[in-house]
Amino acid sequence: MVSASNSGPVRLGMVGGGQGAFIGAVHRIAARLDGDYQLVAGALSSDAKRSLASGIELGLDPDRCYGSFKDMARSEAARADGIEAVSIVTPNHMHYPVAKAFLEAGIHVICDKPLTSTLDDAKKLAKLAKRSGSLFILTHNYTGYPMIRQARDMVARGRLGPIRLVHVEYVQDWLTEAEEDSGNKQAEWRTDPAQSGAGGCVGDIGTHAWNLATCVSGLETHSLAADLDSFVDGRRLDDNVHVMLRFKAKGDEKPAKGMLWSSQVAPGNENSLKLRIYGSKGGLEWQQEEPNRLWFTPFGKPKQLLTRGGASTGAAAARMTRVPPGHPEGYLEGFANIYAEAARAIRARRKAGGKIPADVLYPTVEDGLDGMRFIDACVRSSEKNAAWVKL
Amino acid sequence: MVSASNSGPVRLGMVGGGQGAFIGAVHRIAARLDGDYQLVAGALSSDAKRSLASGIELGLDPDRCYGSFKDMARSEAARADGIEAVSIVTPNHMHYPVAKAFLEAGIHVICDKPLTSTLDDAKKLAKLAKRSGSLFILTHNYTGYPMIRQARDMVARGRLGPIRLVHVEYVQDWLTEAEEDSGNKQAEWRTDPAQSGAGGCVGDIGTHAWNLATCVSGLETHSLAADLDSFVDGRRLDDNVHVMLRFKAKGDEKPAKGMLWSSQVAPGNENSLKLRIYGSKGGLEWQQEEPNRLWFTPFGKPKQLLTRGGASTGAAAARMTRVPPGHPEGYLEGFANIYAEAARAIRARRKAGGKIPADVLYPTVEDGLDGMRFIDACVRSSEKNAAWVKL
Amino acid sequence: MVSASNSGPVRLGMVGGGQGAFIGAVHRIAARLDGDYQLVAGALSSDAKRSLASGIELGLDPDRCYGSFKDMARSEAARADGIEAVSIVTPNHMHYPVAKAFLEAGIHVICDKPLTSTLDDAKKLAKLAKRSGSLFILTHNYTGYPMIRQARDMVARGRLGPIRLVHVEYVQDWLTEAEEDSGNKQAEWRTDPAQSGAGGCVGDIGTHAWNLATCVSGLETHSLAADLDSFVDGRRLDDNVHVMLRFKAKGDEKPAKGMLWSSQVAPGNENSLKLRIYGSKGGLEWQQEEPNRLWFTPFGKPKQLLTRGGASTGAAAARMTRVPPGHPEGYLEGFANIYAEAARAIRARRKAGGKIPADVLYPTVEDGLDGMRFIDACVRSSEKNAAWVKL
Amino acid sequence: MVSASNSGPVRLGMVGGGQGAFIGAVHRIAARLDGDYQLVAGALSSDAKRSLASGIELGLDPDRCYGSFKDMARSEAARADGIEAVSIVTPNHMHYPVAKAFLEAGIHVICDKPLTSTLDDAKKLAKLAKRSGSLFILTHNYTGYPMIRQARDMVARGRLGPIRLVHVEYVQDWLTEAEEDSGNKQAEWRTDPAQSGAGGCVGDIGTHAWNLATCVSGLETHSLAADLDSFVDGRRLDDNVHVMLRFKAKGDEKPAKGMLWSSQVAPGNENSLKLRIYGSKGGLEWQQEEPNRLWFTPFGKPKQLLTRGGASTGAAAARMTRVPPGHPEGYLEGFANIYAEAARAIRARRKAGGKIPADVLYPTVEDGLDGMRFIDACVRSSEKNAAWVKL
Repeated sequence: MVSASNSGPVRLGMVGGGQGAFIGAVHRIAARLDGDYQLVAGALSSDAKRSLASGIELGLDPDRCYGSFKDMARSEAARADGIEAVSIVTPNHMHYPVAKAFLEAGIHVICDKPLTSTLDDAKKLAKLAKRSGSLFILTHNYTGYPMIRQARDMVARGRLGPIRLVHVEYVQDWLTEAEEDSGNKQAEWRTDPAQSGAGGCVGDIGTHAWNLATCVSGLETHSLAADLDSFVDGRRLDDNVHVMLRFKAKGDEKPAKGMLWSSQVAPGNENSLKLRIYGSKGGLEWQQEEPNRLWFTPFGKPKQLLTRGGASTGAAAARMTRVPPGHPEGYLEGFANIYAEAARAIRARRKAGGKIPADVLYPTVEDGLDGMRFIDACVRSSEKNAAWVKL
Repeated sequence: MVSASNSGPVRLGMVGGGQGAFIGAVHRIAARLDGDYQLVAGALSSDAKRSLASGIELGLDPDRCYGSFKDMARSEAARADGIEAVSIVTPNHMHYPVAKAFLEAGIHVICDKPLTSTLDDAKKLAKLAKRSGSLFILTHNYTGYPMIRQARDMVARGRLGPIRLVHVEYVQDWLTEAEEDSGNKQAEWRTDPAQSGAGGCVGDIGTHAWNLATCVSGLETHSLAADLDSFVDGRRLDDNVHVMLRFKAKGDEKPAKGMLWSSQVAPGNENSLKLRIYGSKGGLEWQQEEPNRLWFTPFGKPKQLLTRGGASTGAAAARMTRVPPGHPEGYLEGFANIYAEAARAIRARRKAGGKIPADVLYPTVEDGLDGMRFIDACVRSSEKNAAWVKL
Repeated sequence: MVSASNSGPVRLGMVGGGQGAFIGAVHRIAARLDGDYQLVAGALSSDAKRSLASGIELGLDPDRCYGSFKDMARSEAARADGIEAVSIVTPNHMHYPVAKAFLEAGIHVICDKPLTSTLDDAKKLAKLAKRSGSLFILTHNYTGYPMIRQARDMVARGRLGPIRLVHVEYVQDWLTEAEEDSGNKQAEWRTDPAQSGAGGCVGDIGTHAWNLATCVSGLETHSLAADLDSFVDGRRLDDNVHVMLRFKAKGDEKPAKGMLWSSQVAPGNENSLKLRIYGSKGGLEWQQEEPNRLWFTPFGKPKQLLTRGGASTGAAAARMTRVPPGHPEGYLEGFANIYAEAARAIRARRKAGGKIPADVLYPTVEDGLDGMRFIDACVRSSEKNAAWVKL
Repeated sequence: MVSASNSGPVRLGMVGGGQGAFIGAVHRIAARLDGDYQLVAGALSSDAKRSLASGIELGLDPDRCYGSFKDMARSEAARADGIEAVSIVTPNHMHYPVAKAFLEAGIHVICDKPLTSTLDDAKKLAKLAKRSGSLFILTHNYTGYPMIRQARDMVARGRLGPIRLVHVEYVQDWLTEAEEDSGNKQAEWRTDPAQSGAGGCVGDIGTHAWNLATCVSGLETHSLAADLDSFVDGRRLDDNVHVMLRFKAKGDEKPAKGMLWSSQVAPGNENSLKLRIYGSKGGLEWQQEEPNRLWFTPFGKPKQLLTRGGASTGAAAARMTRVPPGHPEGYLEGFANIYAEAARAIRARRKAGGKIPADVLYPTVEDGLDGMRFIDACVRSSEKNAAWVKL
């Protein structure tokens, strides 16, 4: 059962996520679901008026609806009841300056992915976060799904034997046509290099796929060959990504290989994130659109369908689950699990020298930096006719 | 998008749902999800100490942790900042006295199903609720799933033609063995006639199935023949239910027929609630374990897979959805939708003469009374060798 | 592997199945698939000209294309190279007279289901078949699927524990509208009491469902309550069938219960034959449209997906399979398995006193008589307002 | 309906496929299914005794059971009732000499894939076949599935718009361990370069995947980058294949891209051949293990499930189907469709100047040569660190 320890909710602020935004609302639900947070401040828009209107709609004290994230960091740090953590839900290019401001103000950061819009920013941010005493949580939310925790645990325990193959894909269809020309804000900034960075589809969802694959497999990527395309006329960033992966060897084992496909132009696919991992003793297959199920395929035995909360599903998943098997949990619960883990860490840090429980698991700034290296490698490879490049 | 109107959260109390309970925690998450409620009081256990401990754990003011629901009704009604609504999450036999106390105190009631443990109590409660000025919301939560709203809307618009067939089942396996003898509290009270009433499986989940079928089909049940069994030795209530259904005719149409199966002893089934409805022009098929999908089968055309938020899914579902298609919503979101609808109604009533928006839809005390009639008819029929009885 | 013993193919004749027929072509493929039969004679139509034309098209010797089944039985019995077996693929009402003629001529009979069009004919035929020295094979073809053999074997070995529940359905949509008025010959005779008998849908596909359920479960039906309907205006036979079943107790066990649904008016269903069986230790789930898969659900363990030819699938299925797992076998292969079993029996009987191998399994005339009792009971029950009747 | 034209069955011989072989039995069933062929001669083994024993078991005239394929070609060509066509079902390295012998004898050839074991042989064979007056049919059997015909037809009619993406995979698990060391003949020759050629998995099943993708998409491959591995110690040929594909542009369209994965070491996969094709207007998704279903995903509309024989499935599929929708056809029927098409062509050629019907479609020697170029390109690319190579 997801913890409901109640040593008082975490006081939370938010940057971005005002009226009309998408991911901000998701973060708010995730923060609210288990009662672990209380949203008390926001710079919900860079437009002060809109920030205020958005904040009031959310029940914030108007005094804590800021027109600028810098004001917010400064003011909140100065208050006795100031926020303990901030959620950053802006377009990618703002992640770095905003995170910097709050880290420097001694406030924990919960940041949407990808980490930044450039590898350079990412490196600086990682260094900064490391130096700061604050926590940095990156919301690669799919790692919060209970059956992903189950899969990771099974791989780690050697249930599959040495891993040979990793196949991951994240496929959508919403950019099949030139949606960015239709007034859709989400499509606009996600296809704009100035706001998104050098990667389009690869940054938006390719990183999710890659992060999930490495999180579950425990493998490090050695090198990759990537073929990026923009199928829609006039689109400035990639909307389809083909990648071949080579992982680093573990001990004497032959190094594992993999493929990654990520697309936003494949009609009929909504958020089709699928992961398949095979070792010498068995395999695992999971898909995000049916997240409560995990296929386990031990070699030479019948396939087994493991379910969240069901038989043979272990503690790693159980800790992340709220309702009995057969009552599906979904995207918001998985997202909330990242927030729940973050809350455990933040609360542990309330006491000086407080120690974060050993089983707390969330994506860190280092994972975010790795993700930026992945994006960068894909873009570099593709520019060199999909040659092999190291990460 | 689920409404986030913020004319201040509804002040909520809870009766039942203390430490070790299951459904209470679900109600709390459902209430919290959209920020529409604030839990401020509770009689979380009939044991005063446990009630207090449970309340403190949930962050309640100790003064508002009551040892008795009667004290709570009285005290909260007297406070200026008293609760506006109470959630009742006790075993079935307590629904009636608790609901009565709060209705009489002028407090809205959100009550778990089935309505009561006896048909007699149900009739009295329905009368009482009608007379009172307060709202009564019954958490037949499965009706909150967006694709159930979609299905209901399609039937109502005649997309299937006149309905001929309704097939519904709700199948579990958790009582395959004598779980009630193992110390499982849930199993104990659910198999105890004194706490559950005359129906076991039929009351616990059969009513959900029947409620869902009638909600979507818009049909009234004329009569039924039910064959109830207890397959586990020593079990005092039914654990398997077979029902044949006859519905009332609509206009000149031949009356529709149906079958209902509900079981708690079918290994491999977690919460396998499935609904299939067929008319002369097409059919619909839905299952709770994949709630974001709805099959539409127009006669003579290919089957179509409608998805929550996807193409051809209309306003009735859209109003109940939070995240884009392909990001699954689950049980808690469906449950929260009942709470969200209730909040809209409760807020509308804050103003004297306030009118509830026309599109608000939740199960009412009348639906609950109908459900009790269904349970009663099943038990009566089964006692008469599964003869046909009217509802 | 399906046997390919080659002591010479069985010389086969066919009655019915001329140009424009459906099931005759299926029988011919089934007979041909393993090379166990050679079709050498036919009374393919009661119209002598059409019989001849159909026979020539199939490569028959014109001398052995008969205008009447009686001539055929007489002439073939008199030939040294006369047929050893006849396939009867006429409408139901002709099964009895044709089978009678061939049994009396000492020729083995392979007959389509249901056995006859009346219970009375069925009783006479069963008696006749028993007295005759000839074999009688009824093509309840679904029992030929390998995974059905697997399921039957698992039940028999007690893998599910004592059986409690049997749920079976066979659902189609092709008679959703008045297809019989459109010139479709299949629809015409299947909805005509004179040709089909007293059961429409119940005789056509309900018997298949019931036969499959009893074949796999090994249970005998004690009594049933059936609600039959004709939803299409002017239709003379039922097109939808709801049945509650009570089985005979085995030893001290509580008797099993079941439900059967069969329909030809449920849009979106092609040949949706599904069987689910649950005992105290586990369950099995199978559907005809994905016949190579069988779910095994041991209580308290993960669901397992058994596949034809795959791990944990045993000898009973293996004997009925031709190609490796993952290469699907279908309807024709399942049908051919009945023919293959029949060929083993027929060849065994070529020698005087030849003994049929112990593992040969096919539906017999007794199974056919039971099926007619099932149809009769359904019709009787429905006429008495779906009262319980014994079989 | 599959044609049953009966201008007399094609007289067929077979080389390879004696006792203990796998694919020979499949070819025989495929030839037998529709009654279009009669097997009358064989060189079923290179061991004369075994050839004779195998032939007798199959009911062949002992005089036509040959110990050498050369004798067979010579003798059969000399007989008035000699074979019209030969099926070649030997290991790959024998395809060329055997096909050569029969083509030169004026006998049509039906040959298993891949075409040969070397690209050089393939070129010579293609030239030879072209020069000869005989037909050459390559059994890329998956192209015989009705819903593959449907898919191909939909692409050709522009239902998907210009194609952008092709994803295909053929994944097995039977070589997860060193099966070739266990005495399994199939595993032995398929992992032996001398018998299989330079490609292991890529030749055995990768070619099937690639052939299917190009057959349906109508695209020509421009270049590819392939990463081949042998994960099992001591294995001499690849057992896993990752490929990125670039297709040739059609007109002004951006060229399509693709990925191909083929593996024999992915536990839990039996014959998991999957094809997904996406254009600017819609997509198609199909998998071999459920071959009667085809997903059609028009952009911005609900997904549709097309079924063999069902609504919206057209003539291209209908011509290849034997039984109604919902009665599954499988691998053998798909294979038989190639034989049925071949029979139509062979019969057309019986008359001097006979013209093959325009709609006859089967894989040709040119397709086989293309397949060898694909294998060769994959091996070349992999040897150059998965660099891009042209086909």
